[in-house]
Amino acid sequence: MIEREVANGRLLRQLRFIKEIDGLKDVWRQTYRVDGSRRENDAEHTWEIMIMAVTLYEYAPPGTSLFHALKMLLFHDLVELYAGDTFAYDADSHRDKNERESRAAERVFSLLPKDQHETFRRLWQEYEDADTASGQFARCMDKLQPFLHNIHSRGGTWKQHGIRRQQVLERHRDWMDQIPALGELVEKLSHAAVKEGFLLE
Amino acid sequence: MIEREVANGRLLRQLRFIKEIDGLKDVWRQTYRVDGSRRENDAEHTWEIMIMAVTLYEYAPPGTSLFHALKMLLFHDLVELYAGDTFAYDADSHRDKNERESRAAERVFSLLPKDQHETFRRLWQEYEDADTASGQFARCMDKLQPFLHNIHSRGGTWKQHGIRRQQVLERHRDWMDQIPALGELVEKLSHAAVKEGFLLE
Repeated sequence: MIEREVANGRLLRQLRFIKEIDGLKDVWRQTYRVDGSRRENDAEHTWEIMIMAVTLYEYAPPGTSLFHALKMLLFHDLVELYAGDTFAYDADSHRDKNERESRAAERVFSLLPKDQHETFRRLWQEYEDADTASGQFARCMDKLQPFLHNIHSRGGTWKQHGIRRQQVLERHRDWMDQIPALGELVEKLSHAAVKEGFLLE
Repeated sequence: MIEREVANGRLLRQLRFIKEIDGLKDVWRQTYRVDGSRRENDAEHTWEIMIMAVTLYEYAPPGTSLFHALKMLLFHDLVELYAGDTFAYDADSHRDKNERESRAAERVFSLLPKDQHETFRRLWQEYEDADTASGQFARCMDKLQPFLHNIHSRGGTWKQHGIRRQQVLERHRDWMDQIPALGELVEKLSHAAVKEGFLLE
């Protein structure tokens, strides 16, 4: 680390954090690209859901701050640097997910100066709790993206794992009433996917 | 496109835009990962410079809006969907870069409803012009990231193309005075890189 000789303590911590998070480009998700050509990683996924948030903001619940939602999205998957990606329909790994991710959050954010460590960790916690309008909108983007990829790739991970429509709706249930335009989209698209034969009834 | 049957005109345009931009994950940059293991794509690059912007915001020029800078960064490379990545030190391709990218901006943003088409295109133009504090900060992040990757990978594209320290400083000259803490970092790190033997004097 040649930056050790040239940067002061605060900037050095920030540079180390930035270097460390490059590893998120190695965390591979189950989700396929829209053309089905390959899986995608957490960095690519995060970029896409931020574009989605800006594009679909008009459907967000009243009181949503787009700026706040963007910051939450930016950091929400950093815990997977150490905790790995947990597949949406894998009940077993979901059991200790919270504990694994909480330890990982501490590990990655503590690379930063104390004030940023606290601010970024709070953002991550707000995303996890999803009890604010912005947090809810952010989580909706995170869940809607793999849903749309499964639609575009005509089945993707649904086909591979034999997922049923009720399981899909269950996964989106917590935001569908609060974000009705997009909830309706999920309702109708999942119905069409069954008709097209790439999602089980 | 099964969404044609279920979404109204406005939402349908937004969904098509979101599907189209998935292609940015196929636009490969010259820049290597920090561990030198492989090149990275535009989606990964964009995600990283947004994390950098939030982390390094305290060094931004007075008057910078972090929210505005984040939105500019989010969209700044979408033109490379059709125009491709132009290597920083390739003078030939820089000649028609503006014209190619301007056509590409029109093509990608016109997928959206008219109001969003105009808003997002303006954001892109502001980034290109870089004559606001936010635009300047955004461009600094975009340039600083490959610089840091070349430092971490001990030479990266500098070594490969036989780049000299003066060429590097020339590339960063337009922001270094306005963002002195990071300008000083580039000055000192590039000097250290010469001493370590992975950047030519």
